[in-house]
Amino acid sequence: MSRFSKMPEPPYYAVIFANQASKTPEGYAEMAAAMGEIAKTLPGYIGIESTRDADGFAITVSYWESEEAIKGWREHAKHAIAQQIGKERWYEDYILRVARVERQYSFK
Amino acid sequence: MSRFSKMPEPPYYAVIFANQASKTPEGYAEMAAAMGEIAKTLPGYIGIESTRDADGFAITVSYWESEEAIKGWREHAKHAIAQQIGKERWYEDYILRVARVERQYSFK
Repeated sequence: MSRFSKMPEPPYYAVIFANQASKTPEGYAEMAAAMGEIAKTLPGYIGIESTRDADGFAITVSYWESEEAIKGWREHAKHAIAQQIGKERWYEDYILRVARVERQYSFK
Repeated sequence: MSRFSKMPEPPYYAVIFANQASKTPEGYAEMAAAMGEIAKTLPGYIGIESTRDADGFAITVSYWESEEAIKGWREHAKHAIAQQIGKERWYEDYILRVARVERQYSFK
């Protein structure tokens, strides 16, 4: 399966989530997978690109058709995370940015 | 050293570079490091966030003050890559997107 997202005609939106996972991210992969599964079912979802190195530094970029779609995703994400809070503390640190994709290029 | 970029007041620009490295990316790390060093010296540079997993799937997001700054970076990057072409073929596949950061959140 491709690890790249689809590339519809811009403009569309990117949620850039850079995060440093805590040293013992038990349940992290499961939570991330579950959230990916939820994202796919939501209106306006385009795709997701995600990678994480051995030190736990991860970047996940999800792509959405509109700001509206991002709002929907945020509500679901909050809910999913809230269910887990207190069990684990995955992120030591994160930055989340919402950006409007203006243009794109690819090579294969 | 923090692996997160600075967060100036939006709007600013993100160059989202998702790539799958070839199986034997000799010189890849050196090239990436050299390009990071060049980026830092350019006008309008804000910061960079980058990570890559064991399968060679990498996401690098560089942040810039303006479209103008991205153009400057592109010229330098082309030059640096051109010098290496024929020696190695690092990317099997990539997508590059230019996006305008509209808003941001962080947690530490």
